[in-house]
Amino acid sequence: MKLAIDAMGGDHAPKEIVLGAMKAIEAFSDLEIILVGDERKIKEYLSNEGRISIVHTEEVILGTDEPVRAVRRKKNASMVLAAKLVADGEADGCISAGNTGALMAAGLFVVGRIEGIDRPALSPTLPTIGGEGFLLLDVGANVDAKAEHLLQNAIMGSIYCDKVRGVANPRVGLLNIGTEEKKGNELTKQAFELLQNSNLHFIGNVEARDLLDGVADVVVTDGFTGNMVLKTIEGTAMSVFNMLKTVLSSDLKSKLAAAVLMPNLRALKAKMDYSEYGGAGLFGLKAPVIKAHGSSDANSLYNAVRQTREMVQKEVIQTIKETLEEKSN
Amino acid sequence: MKLAIDAMGGDHAPKEIVLGAMKAIEAFSDLEIILVGDERKIKEYLSNEGRISIVHTEEVILGTDEPVRAVRRKKNASMVLAAKLVADGEADGCISAGNTGALMAAGLFVVGRIEGIDRPALSPTLPTIGGEGFLLLDVGANVDAKAEHLLQNAIMGSIYCDKVRGVANPRVGLLNIGTEEKKGNELTKQAFELLQNSNLHFIGNVEARDLLDGVADVVVTDGFTGNMVLKTIEGTAMSVFNMLKTVLSSDLKSKLAAAVLMPNLRALKAKMDYSEYGGAGLFGLKAPVIKAHGSSDANSLYNAVRQTREMVQKEVIQTIKETLEEKSN
Repeated sequence: MKLAIDAMGGDHAPKEIVLGAMKAIEAFSDLEIILVGDERKIKEYLSNEGRISIVHTEEVILGTDEPVRAVRRKKNASMVLAAKLVADGEADGCISAGNTGALMAAGLFVVGRIEGIDRPALSPTLPTIGGEGFLLLDVGANVDAKAEHLLQNAIMGSIYCDKVRGVANPRVGLLNIGTEEKKGNELTKQAFELLQNSNLHFIGNVEARDLLDGVADVVVTDGFTGNMVLKTIEGTAMSVFNMLKTVLSSDLKSKLAAAVLMPNLRALKAKMDYSEYGGAGLFGLKAPVIKAHGSSDANSLYNAVRQTREMVQKEVIQTIKETLEEKSN
Repeated sequence: MKLAIDAMGGDHAPKEIVLGAMKAIEAFSDLEIILVGDERKIKEYLSNEGRISIVHTEEVILGTDEPVRAVRRKKNASMVLAAKLVADGEADGCISAGNTGALMAAGLFVVGRIEGIDRPALSPTLPTIGGEGFLLLDVGANVDAKAEHLLQNAIMGSIYCDKVRGVANPRVGLLNIGTEEKKGNELTKQAFELLQNSNLHFIGNVEARDLLDGVADVVVTDGFTGNMVLKTIEGTAMSVFNMLKTVLSSDLKSKLAAAVLMPNLRALKAKMDYSEYGGAGLFGLKAPVIKAHGSSDANSLYNAVRQTREMVQKEVIQTIKETLEEKSN
């Protein structure tokens, strides 16, 4: 299996990307990696070239670039070339920690959609108190979604949860402003009906306040709401942790007590760190494309590689294709 | 000044409602209160009848009642009678900790809308790290809002922040999936333009992850998204606190350290408790109608009374009316 990695994407590229790639190579003997980016900079950190090759390019898409324009104009950007390796069949999947919108555009224009999927969904796995996590899709800031998209997302999410996360018969919830069947706007009402008439394990509407309690394994929503909810979870957790930090260092007594608690508090913070579950999948493309978190370190990148490898190995894309074909017959 | 209070609404009614009313009577010498509900049950807790009168009724709207139907059919419910006292000019404003949807319906059908307001907005003040709080509207689960509604909400919210919360020239932000002007769906794009051409202190798009940092004083959004974001903030904060509780009681060493930190941690939790800012206002009605939190204790109810009193005293409704009239001329 061969995966292409954008070595220049993310806040800590290329160092942490290269370190993460090497960690993955050590862990998985069936894996080959193509690092795409500035060869000289990559080689600064590359101490093991076994099964790792480099495709050199100096062009990079920045976080501040307008996504669609960047992908169209910077044809030799590391992210675009990584996607092209997938499109050309030279890699089985690709990973980037760079500009999210640009990766969505590269996925769409370069890798291409699966037939029957109208709109790929950006799908992170988020933490739950119990540690099992849940898949939220779409968070891609796609606007003006249709009910059919939500059904497609539910199908793709269920297959991913089953194959990669090992959740048999995953519970699908529709994110809504109340749990009653008749709640919500036109979109959620229509999506409710489609989901209820599907073969999925649909458990009905779920509320945002219950997400971190693990109320469902797959939570579907439109890309606008999903993006809002994702950012609200991130912002709230961060704010509470920041306030906690202030409390724990407010006086000497607190600092001493905090020192005792520190290992447990670190574990708590790690629990909220969803990079452990891998990156966010761009579901609906012809091959696995994974968005690693922008602040990815070597370990997050390693987790994203592990996840991409599993998607290839467990034939997630193939299963999505077959399921959609069955559905349309 | 006379305020009507639904004595039977909320998880801890009538006890905490009655205690909160008595606390308010002690604090504000200009205040009279009408408690609406079961006289016998109210009197169990009423130890001070000075300036407190009772309107007796045995009918109650339950949390599980379908809001609109409940308000239409239970014409003698404590909440409906409280709203009717306002409509009849016998009270200057009313408060309930009961069924939110029913209070919105009672406000709309019984108290009535201000001319020029298409749709009243449910508007809580939420906590920020710095402690100043921000007004979020609409969170009322109203669906399919129009840009004009968001502008009306921004106007009402600005007046409330100025008059009641003492924030001069409040910063208005439009909740969106990115800060750039062109971001979002049709609704946010149109609302952006309306807000930019208004006399308000519009600071542009704000992102959900920055809300608790106090990025704006008034944050406007549609009732679907607002409801989602509110519940996500509540759910995430609660989950983090629950996880923290587990950490702090995981072993003896942690328990001892936790005991030292407890006063500070309690203060932190109190900071996230937005009942300190009062209840959620139902803005756009002909008189102040305040939704106190369902789990209100005497202190939350007291804060809601204080807030309602300020709205009456500072003539918030009158100012909203005048501002809308000027705007339409």
